[in-house]
Amino acid sequence: MTTSKGEWAIGIDLGATNLRGGIVDRAGRVVARDAMPLGGDKSPAAVIARISGLVQSLRRQTSGVVRAVGCGVPGIVGDQDGVVFSSPNLPEWKDVPVRDLLAKTIGLPVVVDNDANFAALGEARFGAGRGHHNMVLLTLGSGIGGGIILDGKIFHGDEGFAGEVGHIVVEPDGVLCGCGNRGCWERYAASQAFRVFAERLPAEERRALHAASGTTLEGLTPELMARLADAGNACAVELWRQFGTHLGIGIATILNVLGVTTFIIGGGIARSFDRFIGAARESVLAHTYAHHEKKLVLIQAALGDDAGIIGAAVAALP
Amino acid sequence: MTTSKGEWAIGIDLGATNLRGGIVDRAGRVVARDAMPLGGDKSPAAVIARISGLVQSLRRQTSGVVRAVGCGVPGIVGDQDGVVFSSPNLPEWKDVPVRDLLAKTIGLPVVVDNDANFAALGEARFGAGRGHHNMVLLTLGSGIGGGIILDGKIFHGDEGFAGEVGHIVVEPDGVLCGCGNRGCWERYAASQAFRVFAERLPAEERRALHAASGTTLEGLTPELMARLADAGNACAVELWRQFGTHLGIGIATILNVLGVTTFIIGGGIARSFDRFIGAARESVLAHTYAHHEKKLVLIQAALGDDAGIIGAAVAALP
Repeated sequence: MTTSKGEWAIGIDLGATNLRGGIVDRAGRVVARDAMPLGGDKSPAAVIARISGLVQSLRRQTSGVVRAVGCGVPGIVGDQDGVVFSSPNLPEWKDVPVRDLLAKTIGLPVVVDNDANFAALGEARFGAGRGHHNMVLLTLGSGIGGGIILDGKIFHGDEGFAGEVGHIVVEPDGVLCGCGNRGCWERYAASQAFRVFAERLPAEERRALHAASGTTLEGLTPELMARLADAGNACAVELWRQFGTHLGIGIATILNVLGVTTFIIGGGIARSFDRFIGAARESVLAHTYAHHEKKLVLIQAALGDDAGIIGAAVAALP
Repeated sequence: MTTSKGEWAIGIDLGATNLRGGIVDRAGRVVARDAMPLGGDKSPAAVIARISGLVQSLRRQTSGVVRAVGCGVPGIVGDQDGVVFSSPNLPEWKDVPVRDLLAKTIGLPVVVDNDANFAALGEARFGAGRGHHNMVLLTLGSGIGGGIILDGKIFHGDEGFAGEVGHIVVEPDGVLCGCGNRGCWERYAASQAFRVFAERLPAEERRALHAASGTTLEGLTPELMARLADAGNACAVELWRQFGTHLGIGIATILNVLGVTTFIIGGGIARSFDRFIGAARESVLAHTYAHHEKKLVLIQAALGDDAGIIGAAVAALP
């Protein structure tokens, strides 16, 4: 399957419940892949051991030379030292020197970064962002992840905190967020948004939505809302429009700060791209300079779950 | 005053009504300065002729070698070509190749950029931002100007549109802005903010403020509100707190996007720095990661009106 002349890196994507990895060549192709559940013990030592095991398993699949390993972590990662400052999904992880721990265990050079940053790099080099020097990847799932590419490289800010866009305030005194603040963007443009919008419907429409969906507000997932919209439910169509409008407000903010006009939309909710992107585009243009109308690019991510693996591997290749 | 061994550049700051310039050395010192009114004819040709006249006048003040000219313009400037795309204060200016026109007239190398960008560079190199690789300058006046410094250099985004932060949305469906949108940041954290806050006061407090200030809502300028606060007017103190809170929301947004934690506050309203900065800091921390508490730096600009001249000259020096 692979040649011994190849030069590969291994990309690892550490998710909330699964660990996925792949061998990636310089052209961004995944030539082998593997995955395993993360397991119950999420202590740094246990997870590092599992990542190491996945790397060994992947190396056995190739006769070529694996040069390095890149590992994406869902959390804040110092770009200089590969230390994971914190991770919402891995509450025990505080100031864990993942890069150094992994390098020692695996015996290869290791780079560690935030998972959305690696996904952004993957999309920028080999996916929907090709040809754009500057771009922002937004991953829409349970929250909003952000990865910023400037001049073709991941932009980190002072200590790896760049792109933490989910908590941009779009509605002061708005809906309470898990972070303790109110009105955060990811309450209005990620999976819990429909519950927020449904709560604001007139009682009659809310009852009708309840009847059509057969679920409570909590059950109004993007998947269910997609099915309802496809079945012609006008309320669902309208709530996807509201989703797009709120997505657009945050994108406009990022555009006004960074002056970057290319946005790649990924994450599970991007499957409903066509349902919300029209309203999102309108909303971005309503909140930025008219000039951007010609330049604004909102595209669906192209690499799916592979983006993070590809980006991690590409970043690791010397 | 100057030595013939000196190496200088001329920095020009093109304002709404005045043209100011200075000869600046490599250490960021303004060794000579001059100013003139912009005059009634604001066509590109007339303004370029005036800038050229100011440059000649400044050159006569030195026996040393002026190497280059930097010119800050209040508008969107392409960073690659020095073309002024548009300027709110100079409505006739559309796609004016200021850099090339000036270079031809003056016979020296010219760099042109947005005025807030040059002011940010001046503060970063020789003012309040010294020692910070990454920083954002916010100039609070009739609007909010932004200049972003990353790795010690002006960051431009795709076409010079970075740092157009005044129109970040902080209140969807909020107060109408001159740009035609609603809820823009500069309605709540620049000179017109007090009018907005006063309109929301209970009728009784609004009447008391009217009596204390002797003016209508339109007359509630930052200068007047500063005098009222100094005189112990509790309502004025409270409105400065609201000003700080809204300033902080926008700063938090920029922090969450860029991951940059150093903000320099300039512009005329920065004279009231102590009146609003406590509330601003509280508000930034309420809307960002708790981690930033130790890192967040909000400082008053140090160079005043010279920042733009110094930054323009420094950018021009080869």
